Amino acid sequence: MQAGKPILYSYFRSSCSWRVRIALALKSIDYETIPINLVKDGGQQLAIIEYLEETRPTPQLLPQDPKKRAYVRMISDLITGGIQPLQNLSVLKQVGQENQLTWAQKAITSGFNALEQILQSTAGRYCVGDEVSMADLCLVPQVANAERFKVDLMPYPTISRINKTLLALEAFQVSHPCRQPDTPPELRA
Amino acid sequence: MQAGKPILYSYFRSSCSWRVRIALALKSIDYETIPINLVKDGGQQLAIIEYLEETRPTPQLLPQDPKKRAYVRMISDLITGGIQPLQNLSVLKQVGQENQLTWAQKAITSGFNALEQILQSTAGRYCVGDEVSMADLCLVPQVANAERFKVDLMPYPTISRINKTLLALEAFQVSHPCRQPDTPPELRA
Repeated sequence: MQAGKPILYSYFRSSCSWRVRIALALKSIDYETIPINLVKDGGQQLAIIEYLEETRPTPQLLPQDPKKRAYVRMISDLITGGIQPLQNLSVLKQVGQENQLTWAQKAITSGFNALEQILQSTAGRYCVGDEVSMADLCLVPQVANAERFKVDLMPYPTISRINKTLLALEAFQVSHPCRQPDTPPELRA
Repeated sequence: MQAGKPILYSYFRSSCSWRVRIALALKSIDYETIPINLVKDGGQQLAIIEYLEETRPTPQLLPQDPKKRAYVRMISDLITGGIQPLQNLSVLKQVGQENQLTWAQKAITSGFNALEQILQSTAGRYCVGDEVSMADLCLVPQVANAERFKVDLMPYPTISRINKTLLALEAFQVSHPCRQPDTPPELRA
C-alpha cells in the first residue's frame, strides 16, 4: 500500500459506499479498497463527502450559491436521512422476512413522491441545475436500491431521466456495485 | 408579520424542529413560528442549518479545521440519519402500537452505543472540542427522545454529561419543546 493513499472500507452493494466511490472518482482521488461485509446504518458517509469537498475542492460537488447549496443538501438529506435508513439491511432484518419487500417499497415510494416534486423545480440536466452535485451522488445509488426492491419507477419521470443521464458518466460507472473488488461473480457486469 | 422575517414551520416536539430552533437562537435570528401538526421524516432540516451557517456565519456552528468539521458532520449524520429516522412518528406507526417502544429503544441504544464511543475521542466540553457545534444541536433533541422512550442512559456517561452542559445554555432552553407556541398546557414548563 502506497503511503498516504486513502483507504475506503467499502461494501460493493452499499449505497453509502457507492456515494463515496462516485465522489472519489469525480475528484480523481486514487484509493485502496478494503471490502467489508458489514453494512452500517444511516447516512454517515455524507460527512466523508463534505470532508472531500473541503480538502479537494475540484470539481465542486456543492454549488457556490447558498440557496442552491441548500437545495443540494435538502435532496441529499431526504435520500440519506429520509429513505435509505428505512430500507437498509439491519432494519429489514428487524422487520422480518415476510414484510421486507412491502416495508422497503413503502419507504422508497414515500420518499420518491417528495423527491420527484422537489426535482421538478430544482433540476436542470442533473438534480440541481446543470452541474453534478452531492445530490446526484445520493440519487443514483438510491434508484439502484429502488430497482432491487422492484419499485415501479413510472411515476417518477424526473428521477428516472436524471438517473439515466448520470449513469452515462464515467465516475458513476467505475464506482458501480457491479464493478467492485468484492462484487460476487454472478453480479458482475 | 415583519417583512423579511423568516418563518419556521415548527412542531414543538419534533427533534428536527428543535435543532433548527437552537441554531436560530444561537445566531440571534428573530423569526415567526407557524406551528404544524405533521411531523415529517428524516434529517432534512440539517440543510436549513447548513444554509444558516453559510448566510449567518456568527457564531460558527462548524469548526474551521476540516477534520473537526468531519467529526461534527459524522456525529450529526449518525443522529439525523442513523437514529432519528428509525424512531420518528411515521415509522413507529408502521411498526404497530405493541412493538413501538422496543423498536425505538433498539434504534436509540444501537445508535448511542456508537455515539458514546465516538464522543469519548472527540468531546471536550461539548461534542467536538469546547465550542458548540451542529453536532450539539443534534445531540440534545435526540437525548430528549431517548428519555421519552425510557432508554436507560447510565451506559452513556459522555452523552449524558454533554447533554446536561448544553441544557444549561440559553439557546437550548428558549428552543425547548416545553416552551413553544404549540406546546400543550400539560407539557409546558
